[in-house]
Amino acid sequence: MMSVTLYGFWRSLAAFRVRALLHYKEIPFNEKIINLLEGDQFSADYHERNPQHVIPLLEHDGHRVTQSLAIMEYIDQVWPERPILPTSAIERAYVRSISQITIADTHPLVVPRIRNYLNKTYGQDEAGQASWAQHWFNEGSLAIEQRLKSDGLCGQFTLGDQITLGDFALCSHIVGARLFGADVSIAPTLVAIADRCLATEAFMLSHPMKQSGAPIKK
Amino acid sequence: MMSVTLYGFWRSLAAFRVRALLHYKEIPFNEKIINLLEGDQFSADYHERNPQHVIPLLEHDGHRVTQSLAIMEYIDQVWPERPILPTSAIERAYVRSISQITIADTHPLVVPRIRNYLNKTYGQDEAGQASWAQHWFNEGSLAIEQRLKSDGLCGQFTLGDQITLGDFALCSHIVGARLFGADVSIAPTLVAIADRCLATEAFMLSHPMKQSGAPIKK
Repeated sequence: MMSVTLYGFWRSLAAFRVRALLHYKEIPFNEKIINLLEGDQFSADYHERNPQHVIPLLEHDGHRVTQSLAIMEYIDQVWPERPILPTSAIERAYVRSISQITIADTHPLVVPRIRNYLNKTYGQDEAGQASWAQHWFNEGSLAIEQRLKSDGLCGQFTLGDQITLGDFALCSHIVGARLFGADVSIAPTLVAIADRCLATEAFMLSHPMKQSGAPIKK
Repeated sequence: MMSVTLYGFWRSLAAFRVRALLHYKEIPFNEKIINLLEGDQFSADYHERNPQHVIPLLEHDGHRVTQSLAIMEYIDQVWPERPILPTSAIERAYVRSISQITIADTHPLVVPRIRNYLNKTYGQDEAGQASWAQHWFNEGSLAIEQRLKSDGLCGQFTLGDQITLGDFALCSHIVGARLFGADVSIAPTLVAIADRCLATEAFMLSHPMKQSGAPIKK
């Protein structure tokens, strides 16, 4: 029996990317909640599963995969239906590169362990941490917006009119930017793409605010 | 005529990864220096090439690719000799995942734009910035060391005894950790792998301290 378990948390943008892809590919899965605010990531059980103490973690048929980008590439290789990577080298590079502007250059700067460090070491309170996060989300938004315009490969989505890896990355960027109160109006092309993703069932169902544990929206 | 140009800088760990891969694959290339300390990344010429103002950038036959991980995957697809990705999904995921512990979760925290922000916003001088960098290199080293041990897939190199994508990532991590004065002794398995890489010609030639512009070692 093949089984797929995602270890995630409502607030995690990286878990959102992976959850949306599982829904997009129509892969049945269970999600186990690792409450990062309550320190579940440091439990003995989770430490054994992922000594880096981060989510998401995908368990598939006895295999464990970490890091959202590696998980998404793994899923695309194991479940090739509805592929999320184009075949040409240059289009693949475009999709991966634009994804990494947020997955590598933005998101890792705003995760809890960084905000905790800013608090402990530089005395940054919640407002200070938000200011840090907004700054880097804005930098990322501007960089992605410029790439979308200058590369000339986007259409309704990141690459033309089909959903690719880039959309899971870019949509999570905008969802995160909004959660942290950044100004997304500086990147209208990016926002339009993210909102087209969020209008699809896979992304809608996967949105952080729709997950168990998320605060009730007023 | 096919031409390959790498836009790099001696100090850049991301350029080091790509440079080492070009040497490893024996791909002829030119390197153009973008002096990050003198602001070359903001010149009109480079802005037109990469509006994100970061290196490395690979130009190949009129195509431009950014983000070191995307560039390395691109190179491996276009020049398939001496492949750096295993074929099985789970081994690929392992190699990509362990690479991303440094490429996504560590290195983006210590690049110049972050250190500049720490200086301007939190008044962190060189010692404060070094302390920040050492902290995150150590976190990354411990996480990678644990993965190398717990996954049980490493040998002489990250995956068994052949060089893969993981070695370009892990070697750059240790080179960076040493440049920033972090304590690499906490990760002996990782250090041994990195030093085996550095004993090969491709990595030796590509080392940051061997590049034009690097300070003379006493």
